[in-house]
Amino acid sequence: MSHNSFGHLFRITTWGESHGPAIGCVVDGCPSLIGLTKEEIQKDLDRRRPGQSRFTTQRQEADQVEILSGVFAHPQTGEQVTTGTSIGLLIQNTDQRSKDYGGIAERYRPGHADFTYDAKYGIRDYRGGGRSSARETAMRVAAGAIARKVIPHITVRAALVQMGPHKINRANWDWEEVNNNPFFCPDKEAAAEWATYLGGVRKSGSSIGAVVEVVASGVPAGLGAPIYAKLDQDIASAMMSINAVKGVEIGDGFATAALSGEENADEIRIGPDGQAVFSTNHAGGILGGISSGQDVVVRFAIKPTSSILTPKKSITRSGEEVDVMTKGRHDPCVGIRAVPVGEAMLALVLADHTLLHRAQMGGQ
Amino acid sequence: MSHNSFGHLFRITTWGESHGPAIGCVVDGCPSLIGLTKEEIQKDLDRRRPGQSRFTTQRQEADQVEILSGVFAHPQTGEQVTTGTSIGLLIQNTDQRSKDYGGIAERYRPGHADFTYDAKYGIRDYRGGGRSSARETAMRVAAGAIARKVIPHITVRAALVQMGPHKINRANWDWEEVNNNPFFCPDKEAAAEWATYLGGVRKSGSSIGAVVEVVASGVPAGLGAPIYAKLDQDIASAMMSINAVKGVEIGDGFATAALSGEENADEIRIGPDGQAVFSTNHAGGILGGISSGQDVVVRFAIKPTSSILTPKKSITRSGEEVDVMTKGRHDPCVGIRAVPVGEAMLALVLADHTLLHRAQMGGQ
Amino acid sequence: MSHNSFGHLFRITTWGESHGPAIGCVVDGCPSLIGLTKEEIQKDLDRRRPGQSRFTTQRQEADQVEILSGVFAHPQTGEQVTTGTSIGLLIQNTDQRSKDYGGIAERYRPGHADFTYDAKYGIRDYRGGGRSSARETAMRVAAGAIARKVIPHITVRAALVQMGPHKINRANWDWEEVNNNPFFCPDKEAAAEWATYLGGVRKSGSSIGAVVEVVASGVPAGLGAPIYAKLDQDIASAMMSINAVKGVEIGDGFATAALSGEENADEIRIGPDGQAVFSTNHAGGILGGISSGQDVVVRFAIKPTSSILTPKKSITRSGEEVDVMTKGRHDPCVGIRAVPVGEAMLALVLADHTLLHRAQMGGQ
Amino acid sequence: MSHNSFGHLFRITTWGESHGPAIGCVVDGCPSLIGLTKEEIQKDLDRRRPGQSRFTTQRQEADQVEILSGVFAHPQTGEQVTTGTSIGLLIQNTDQRSKDYGGIAERYRPGHADFTYDAKYGIRDYRGGGRSSARETAMRVAAGAIARKVIPHITVRAALVQMGPHKINRANWDWEEVNNNPFFCPDKEAAAEWATYLGGVRKSGSSIGAVVEVVASGVPAGLGAPIYAKLDQDIASAMMSINAVKGVEIGDGFATAALSGEENADEIRIGPDGQAVFSTNHAGGILGGISSGQDVVVRFAIKPTSSILTPKKSITRSGEEVDVMTKGRHDPCVGIRAVPVGEAMLALVLADHTLLHRAQMGGQ
Repeated sequence: MSHNSFGHLFRITTWGESHGPAIGCVVDGCPSLIGLTKEEIQKDLDRRRPGQSRFTTQRQEADQVEILSGVFAHPQTGEQVTTGTSIGLLIQNTDQRSKDYGGIAERYRPGHADFTYDAKYGIRDYRGGGRSSARETAMRVAAGAIARKVIPHITVRAALVQMGPHKINRANWDWEEVNNNPFFCPDKEAAAEWATYLGGVRKSGSSIGAVVEVVASGVPAGLGAPIYAKLDQDIASAMMSINAVKGVEIGDGFATAALSGEENADEIRIGPDGQAVFSTNHAGGILGGISSGQDVVVRFAIKPTSSILTPKKSITRSGEEVDVMTKGRHDPCVGIRAVPVGEAMLALVLADHTLLHRAQMGGQ
Repeated sequence: MSHNSFGHLFRITTWGESHGPAIGCVVDGCPSLIGLTKEEIQKDLDRRRPGQSRFTTQRQEADQVEILSGVFAHPQTGEQVTTGTSIGLLIQNTDQRSKDYGGIAERYRPGHADFTYDAKYGIRDYRGGGRSSARETAMRVAAGAIARKVIPHITVRAALVQMGPHKINRANWDWEEVNNNPFFCPDKEAAAEWATYLGGVRKSGSSIGAVVEVVASGVPAGLGAPIYAKLDQDIASAMMSINAVKGVEIGDGFATAALSGEENADEIRIGPDGQAVFSTNHAGGILGGISSGQDVVVRFAIKPTSSILTPKKSITRSGEEVDVMTKGRHDPCVGIRAVPVGEAMLALVLADHTLLHRAQMGGQ
Repeated sequence: MSHNSFGHLFRITTWGESHGPAIGCVVDGCPSLIGLTKEEIQKDLDRRRPGQSRFTTQRQEADQVEILSGVFAHPQTGEQVTTGTSIGLLIQNTDQRSKDYGGIAERYRPGHADFTYDAKYGIRDYRGGGRSSARETAMRVAAGAIARKVIPHITVRAALVQMGPHKINRANWDWEEVNNNPFFCPDKEAAAEWATYLGGVRKSGSSIGAVVEVVASGVPAGLGAPIYAKLDQDIASAMMSINAVKGVEIGDGFATAALSGEENADEIRIGPDGQAVFSTNHAGGILGGISSGQDVVVRFAIKPTSSILTPKKSITRSGEEVDVMTKGRHDPCVGIRAVPVGEAMLALVLADHTLLHRAQMGGQ
Repeated sequence: MSHNSFGHLFRITTWGESHGPAIGCVVDGCPSLIGLTKEEIQKDLDRRRPGQSRFTTQRQEADQVEILSGVFAHPQTGEQVTTGTSIGLLIQNTDQRSKDYGGIAERYRPGHADFTYDAKYGIRDYRGGGRSSARETAMRVAAGAIARKVIPHITVRAALVQMGPHKINRANWDWEEVNNNPFFCPDKEAAAEWATYLGGVRKSGSSIGAVVEVVASGVPAGLGAPIYAKLDQDIASAMMSINAVKGVEIGDGFATAALSGEENADEIRIGPDGQAVFSTNHAGGILGGISSGQDVVVRFAIKPTSSILTPKKSITRSGEEVDVMTKGRHDPCVGIRAVPVGEAMLALVLADHTLLHRAQMGGQ
């Protein structure tokens, strides 16, 4: 069992604390001869980077990734390509104001992992949340950028579809819009309203939850496996491993509980090209743990961060009762920055299952 | 990567098709000297068995489990105990009316795994769904009964909390009630209403979805691990691997998206015994992937089975358009029988993480 | 970590004790549409079966394998083929004379696992060695027969090349001869001498060690992986997991310690077909953990069984000093029956790495 | 499957090429609250470092390790201790004379992994052997230093017991002597002879093989597991994964093939303290895959490096026949520097199995 690794054949292992000297990731199992530059990874990282609007933490991290191994100049083209060996990634931590966090060395912030890390390990790096900080997700995004290159036929996109109690109007969905607002919101009107709403949340020192939807298009039928390597199972594992996520659903998800068999059935016809065409996608592109060729649709809920200005009751390491409020630089809606992380995790799962599928199918 | 195995240290591997000669499971990693008889396993199996009321499939399976290895008489007490070697479990399939299923050899039932299994493997055992049948979950329940014995200090219970659009009234929750009705419903009033409701669904040849809630009490703080072996991550993986599950949530789950940081924070005080006491449990007993000592609370949504009498559009293996209706014996609400399965999966995850925790902590 | 599973993508999990009701194996990860009948498996099993000559244990086991899942009639050809789901194998134990073994319930046989199993688990199924019995290797042979079908282009053969102090004359090597004598000996002359020699060992109630050589021909270049999934690493793991094996070597093995770089270098030329041709094979077909296209050559040493008639000093469970001699039916040279087991293990490793190679290479 | 990870619970993942900017390792699964400084790791690294005598490569690498994550000041003592999170290690590559290696970009050195890496991946970082360089073993030694701290009750030591055809005299064995000569030789007289012998090998531009013996003392009975997680199986895997290793044996190893059951039996008596005492240790401390409490004794053979001045026949990437000789800085006996690597690998396996044993035993 490995606590800091994810994936079967395309496998990542991360390390690093929020306020240590650096964070890093090893990407193992990437096929060779895939073009890869740090600029391609950086592009995805920049989408996740904090400090880009007033709605995300003002912590300034350049988040410049370095590729330390696993790529080499192609003997013919000179292009940097993967060599099939493990890819070492590293980001220096440049903005480490540890003094901001001194107050929480002894106090457990309610809703954070302070109490449980101490309960388990008898020690924690409290600076900025240490290992439990969302900073680790930078490495997921970096690895996800590599995963995307393994599955160029698949497009993985995500959007914020709910902020606090405010859901988007799905009729307004426009993927182009996602990059036009600081919320990754696909609904222009909702984005405008959210700006006002979240501004208020931020000013009051509060925080709010959110829902992210991730969609993969171009997924061929046949990815996944029966029983305990189901595609949706690995997706659920991937999404639930993201900080602050409390729920995951595929396709219609929890709504299917209220549906009848007639309502939930995705009927099939033969399309003009002789391929199966589904009339609807209640299943979210996965049946029996295996992709159907439809879009894979995943949603996950992120709880509001407990880093708020309102004092809450808590205790100290030594068992004294205290009130805790969190100063410092924090996101009023951590769900926003979870959007590129959700994309990365789905890309990782799909790259992994693509390799697995090749293993099983190559001989036929 | 193993397609038919689940767990890290306490690990199960299952095999068998719905209408093959038998199904089985290997339980690997169970500590030695734990008392274990087949009667104890049978007791849990009997709760899941079909044919117990008019609301579950009329397929009659005795589901008699055999323990074929891994137990031996204790040299002092003579009691049957585990020996630390792999435990082989087997259930003969006794009621195999294959003729009921002949019609689906060529036709893909919408919403079932027929299409995707064929897309992946080029072949499928179509009899009763073959490997994709919920019959495999009998082995999860059997293995879960062994897992329970590894964690005698933890109580894992589950209940059906929503059937179709009808939710229970949580104020009526009574664990005793769960075994008094055919729905594992903890709300006596709801159970009475559901009987009428599901009777109607059954008569119309339709089906309906459901939500199961699983609760583990007595979980010590410290189970789980950071990042990619989070307790909630493994729980999400476990639940999403159950047939027909489309969503999983921990604690307040998707509802946390609409909460503020103030509302979501579980405040902490010191109890009379000097231990931490949480005022609420929005987190569902898990913070940062590690158990807090509170109840672990999990919910999952099960879609309605697509085995319905209403014809739905589909295609055949050879690409012809057809209408498919499913005769044969089926459950109008497959969520009912998922209740003991959910219990078993949570017990498996908790036993697994208990062993892992011992590994990490034993040296201190 | 799984104690009773072997392999990465093509993965086996075994269960069962020597004198329990049955032994079994789950083969997971086998590609679909591969023809498979129990007769094909039985053929390999029959080569390993005890009681075939006076030189192996007189225990009579029919060793009839059953395939309980994972195969189905091909829709076009009707041939039994794999479906891609887990394959459940089972052999009933038919000859369980437990009374033969009652004497060792309390006594630790020197050189056997009695002492260490008790030290680890506090209990052991002492009947016939329980889980530590070589009976488990029947399942390796059965699984190996399936592995062979995944790699039809590779031929895996093995032979006994040393019995006690007596080595074969390599100039006499004849693969045809291997099945003409009860020792799997490729040297007709040596086989004749061994018959006399082993007859004497057997009559004196003694036992003797042996060396097995396994050779795989037709292995394509490129199987294996750098660093910790080296082909030779997995082969060493596979062979050392066989009962009583105390050493493993690849190619020239320990003899390379005495060689100079000049002597050890396998020179390369271009053959008539434009492919690389090696002048020698000191490396045993593996360089840097990856197959070179030459024959993969593996040898392993099997110690003499400690089941002998001469009393040896030992202790009991309760710490008393005793003398132990082993009556009952045993092999004077357990290395003989290890020959088909060695073949099976190499076939398993090569099938596993073939699937892995497809995963990595499929995209190019 | 992970190509660059080793271990089950105590698990390392390495990355980096010989002439890339850095090499690194992630150590996952290390328990918390274990004192750890980079100086402790450096001490072991310095034993392996090249350039320390005229008998090892003159490549000068400072090999200064950095700990980038996973340690933190203990709240009470201020001592740097592990936190239970993944430990990131990094060594900058400071001496990268890539020009030395330009000649081998196109040519395959016989006996090296040049040919097979290209056959598998279609590309390789040829500079200094890239990923197949023994430089990766620096990270094994660093990780091994951490493993030692997990098992302070176990002492792991290694020595060179054969250089080319010259074996030590075991009667002269003196562990103190190991650090008094540049060969890690425990026999003072042999060391003196080897100095002359290896001087000659070096001057002639040749190379020679060797045998390393690794011994672990203080190993408690009970480490290991039946069947496919045998302690000796994992040791064989560990040692065979070291560059240039062609054979591994436990205890008497290949010599047991020539022994009778009477000769091979390690008899047992009760010692003065009431514990089992073995009269001999033919088994090398492992019975049935589980440690017996005796010293664990492992030997492995390292082939001579193919980096020699004598031209050998080979081919180029493009299929032309050429003669290859290797200039540059190389070890005449790579086995010398494998001594601390062997120690590290055995420490890693024993730490891993110690954690596993705690998992299984903690409940009793």
